[in-house]
Amino acid sequence: MKRIRGVVPPMVTPLLDNDHLDVPGLERLVEHILAGGVHGLFLLGTTGEAPDLPYELRRELVRRTSQLVAGRVPILVGVTDTVFTESLKMAACAQECGAAGLVAAPPYYFAAGQPELIDYYTRLADRVPLPLYLYNMPSQVKVMISVPTVIELAKHPNIVGLKDSSGNIGYFNACRYQLRNRDDFAILMGPEEAMGEAVLMGADGGVAGGANLFPKMFVDLYDAAVAKDVDRVRALQERVMRVSSLIYGIGHHNSSFVKGVKCALSLMGVCSDVLAAPREPFNAADRELVRSRLVELGAL
Amino acid sequence: MKRIRGVVPPMVTPLLDNDHLDVPGLERLVEHILAGGVHGLFLLGTTGEAPDLPYELRRELVRRTSQLVAGRVPILVGVTDTVFTESLKMAACAQECGAAGLVAAPPYYFAAGQPELIDYYTRLADRVPLPLYLYNMPSQVKVMISVPTVIELAKHPNIVGLKDSSGNIGYFNACRYQLRNRDDFAILMGPEEAMGEAVLMGADGGVAGGANLFPKMFVDLYDAAVAKDVDRVRALQERVMRVSSLIYGIGHHNSSFVKGVKCALSLMGVCSDVLAAPREPFNAADRELVRSRLVELGAL
Amino acid sequence: MKRIRGVVPPMVTPLLDNDHLDVPGLERLVEHILAGGVHGLFLLGTTGEAPDLPYELRRELVRRTSQLVAGRVPILVGVTDTVFTESLKMAACAQECGAAGLVAAPPYYFAAGQPELIDYYTRLADRVPLPLYLYNMPSQVKVMISVPTVIELAKHPNIVGLKDSSGNIGYFNACRYQLRNRDDFAILMGPEEAMGEAVLMGADGGVAGGANLFPKMFVDLYDAAVAKDVDRVRALQERVMRVSSLIYGIGHHNSSFVKGVKCALSLMGVCSDVLAAPREPFNAADRELVRSRLVELGAL
Amino acid sequence: MKRIRGVVPPMVTPLLDNDHLDVPGLERLVEHILAGGVHGLFLLGTTGEAPDLPYELRRELVRRTSQLVAGRVPILVGVTDTVFTESLKMAACAQECGAAGLVAAPPYYFAAGQPELIDYYTRLADRVPLPLYLYNMPSQVKVMISVPTVIELAKHPNIVGLKDSSGNIGYFNACRYQLRNRDDFAILMGPEEAMGEAVLMGADGGVAGGANLFPKMFVDLYDAAVAKDVDRVRALQERVMRVSSLIYGIGHHNSSFVKGVKCALSLMGVCSDVLAAPREPFNAADRELVRSRLVELGAL
Repeated sequence: MKRIRGVVPPMVTPLLDNDHLDVPGLERLVEHILAGGVHGLFLLGTTGEAPDLPYELRRELVRRTSQLVAGRVPILVGVTDTVFTESLKMAACAQECGAAGLVAAPPYYFAAGQPELIDYYTRLADRVPLPLYLYNMPSQVKVMISVPTVIELAKHPNIVGLKDSSGNIGYFNACRYQLRNRDDFAILMGPEEAMGEAVLMGADGGVAGGANLFPKMFVDLYDAAVAKDVDRVRALQERVMRVSSLIYGIGHHNSSFVKGVKCALSLMGVCSDVLAAPREPFNAADRELVRSRLVELGAL
Repeated sequence: MKRIRGVVPPMVTPLLDNDHLDVPGLERLVEHILAGGVHGLFLLGTTGEAPDLPYELRRELVRRTSQLVAGRVPILVGVTDTVFTESLKMAACAQECGAAGLVAAPPYYFAAGQPELIDYYTRLADRVPLPLYLYNMPSQVKVMISVPTVIELAKHPNIVGLKDSSGNIGYFNACRYQLRNRDDFAILMGPEEAMGEAVLMGADGGVAGGANLFPKMFVDLYDAAVAKDVDRVRALQERVMRVSSLIYGIGHHNSSFVKGVKCALSLMGVCSDVLAAPREPFNAADRELVRSRLVELGAL
Repeated sequence: MKRIRGVVPPMVTPLLDNDHLDVPGLERLVEHILAGGVHGLFLLGTTGEAPDLPYELRRELVRRTSQLVAGRVPILVGVTDTVFTESLKMAACAQECGAAGLVAAPPYYFAAGQPELIDYYTRLADRVPLPLYLYNMPSQVKVMISVPTVIELAKHPNIVGLKDSSGNIGYFNACRYQLRNRDDFAILMGPEEAMGEAVLMGADGGVAGGANLFPKMFVDLYDAAVAKDVDRVRALQERVMRVSSLIYGIGHHNSSFVKGVKCALSLMGVCSDVLAAPREPFNAADRELVRSRLVELGAL
Repeated sequence: MKRIRGVVPPMVTPLLDNDHLDVPGLERLVEHILAGGVHGLFLLGTTGEAPDLPYELRRELVRRTSQLVAGRVPILVGVTDTVFTESLKMAACAQECGAAGLVAAPPYYFAAGQPELIDYYTRLADRVPLPLYLYNMPSQVKVMISVPTVIELAKHPNIVGLKDSSGNIGYFNACRYQLRNRDDFAILMGPEEAMGEAVLMGADGGVAGGANLFPKMFVDLYDAAVAKDVDRVRALQERVMRVSSLIYGIGHHNSSFVKGVKCALSLMGVCSDVLAAPREPFNAADRELVRSRLVELGAL
């Protein structure tokens, strides 16, 4: 059985400042997302700005979110780290808080070779107390978890899925094809711009950052894809593309996605738009642009 | 109206040696592909090894193929070049031979900036006598034709489509979304590993290299996708993935796709497996491996 | 006045296992390096595997090394981190231990744009209690600190130098040229393969990883370059190239440099060759190869 | 004996328009460069925009330049091409015109693997009638000619040197070190920003684009480096850096170097600033900026 299916939003981390959670914002955010009917919640991923957050704050986030979710959906916790021991510590914290699984991208300072990745994930999966998901994220970690490496690692009893954020459709489909008979291994699409078609073709779900904003839209999209309702998938995916084109491309640099989502959440009254240092929230002009586009989308 | 739809195989170029066409092989190849019911034929693309072929051979290929096809399907001719004048000359040759359109990737020695790409394609589209398709191929030309650049260029009356071979699904879907109301602009998926889902979601077709080998399989896949028959798309796309995993990954370096296709065509008795210099056909061991896999696929 | 000049070895971190220092090895290593007459010591850089080390171990390393060095040479401490607060904590630890300066590469998960780098380094330099050196390391952090950004940041009163490990000679020389009149800003060459010529041309020194093994060779090279003794620089740089070609290219992946240095130190009886997880020391065959080459170099 | 030593300017190609040489400009340019005392002339390199020039124009350039030079210095001719036969044809043209050698970067559409590079250069060196220089240019051709590949190819009797334009100082020095005993193999530095130190350390010369503008400055720099006059090398290299910082960084995209050089030559009355399509000369504002900087340099 797949450990997870459906829409698993990579939750943003509401911050008051660089070292403090926005606790009331977190409470509203969790309820906002869960109200959409999502199937899980992924904490401390790239959208969650995990690598830039102090460790104590990461642990507080896991503890508080687990209490807020209170078992309504399974929680996955990112343990990606350059320090192996810190990954283990975060995994222990996740287990204590009742998380359902762990997610790890490759170490991201030294780019590992494929044999090193096999060693790394094997060691990690051997030692952590929860099921582990591979997280392919080459734009940040400089290396793909190659298809043969995924196939090899999928044999490990504690490695139960793959989240692919490469956006490389040939790679994603090759992984899905090679593991098509593995009913116990979940394959999740990262980029929300491809979630509909991925599930139509047999993927198990998506880790859609936009589900922080519009969780029900993604749940509807997932349901339509599972039902093989192509027309409805097209229509809903078009709405996803509209949000993507209006909200995620404001500003410059590769932080525009997280900035856009946090700014929109702030304008929608959900949580703060503070980002982990050194990144700054949108300036007034960009914020106003997000506001006008949320109005255009009917979200304000 | 779209100028082209459906399966448009990027034809390999059958060679006797570096400077001579395998003319009988070309005749068999054209009939082999057309027998599959494809909707067009794309000459002198990356699969056709165009940049490595002598110019006279390129022109002979266009002339001979046009005569062989004899109007049964529209022909697109690649005019990608670093030399602007050579692109114009190849375009004139294509027109003389009755081609339906031209395809151009960005110049590939100096990586152009986006404003330069707008200038380049505008100049080219102004001067060529046939409709022009943009060809996004960042792995070879070092630059993406960005989404805003595509949107801008799509306004040109003589630019009628985009072939995207980036494999970047977010990019492909953004282009498709932005141009969704342009009934006169075709968007074609490059990687065959994503053709089924692309057409299911509304793309106009695919430029599937594997259609050199198994044209009908791709035509069936296209038809199933147009009919929104998800189960059949899944089954046929799975067959495409099987071919891909068995035939395209033998050998090393980034020529394994063309080598695999040409070797398989040679084993199937269609045409020679000679490659343009400096590349060599598979050695005996790799050739034997391709043979055994074609047997496994029921193609021998 | 330059805060630092000369040979500043980026010290490897002797480990017993992933979480424990090799304390006797550290003692021998410090004495081995200082006996060569080096001008400073750089802890917790890339050669020191800093991003892969547990924080408590990093702090213990700084404390112990400071005690061992006991003021004989200035110590620079790497504070590169994705977590801003952790950089500040490490900076405080460095100050407490009497370090002379701090070194920071850009945050390495999210690739920063140049304006973000200016913000980042300005914030960091504003808050840390010791002079700060910029550390250009694009292969690991995915972004160059551009020449204009270096020029801008060099105006900050607490930013006192640049260590460039890009290996890009045009970049290095452009930085040196632009800051040629800044007697208070040090420019240090990373790759030891270019240290001699860099100092000949006016650079302030080098952060030579090989100085863990052969510190006096690099001090001699530096002295010869300061003395503008071209023949001696050539001869000594040739010895550096010999070590580089014999010791650093064994094994695969981009860890071969650190593995080679640690293996050689182990064979020379200085310290352990354990690497931070997930990396493993050389296997027996590679270790034997290092041994034979150390014999060839007269180092065993 | 080295086939070539010293300053070998990569000559720009003076153009009237995309298909026609600026013949009077070419005459003035050749005399301008030769008056500086350079040791050779390199036609049809990257600075010469070779890949963007029509073949007939390339041949005319070689013929006319050979006649103008009339044996005063050896001429090297670039034969870099994606089409093997075109490389051979250009080589034959070079021989007919009395050229001294050929220069070839790897084919630049399909990125070759290292074994393919060995095959490619071996075939080419076997067939061309003149000595061949390897041209390492990864920014344009997407692949380094690796150090082991250079070592292997240097054994070929007709491969007589390496021009390295990577700017990677570790690579350059590794090649120079490995081939230090090969008195018959020339190693030439591409980036002029590193020519002084390269020759000081034992390299055979430089292919300095700026020598189109200020040939004598580079000849003086070369002479000072050969004489091991470090102070003079520093002073002259500083002048090179000044030109580089003032003239080569205007405008955007990676064509700013060629645009700057051609614009300056035009302002100095030497030749036209027309660039091969699709690139345009500087606009009026950028041209005015170049003018003011040439005044600042005392060149106008």
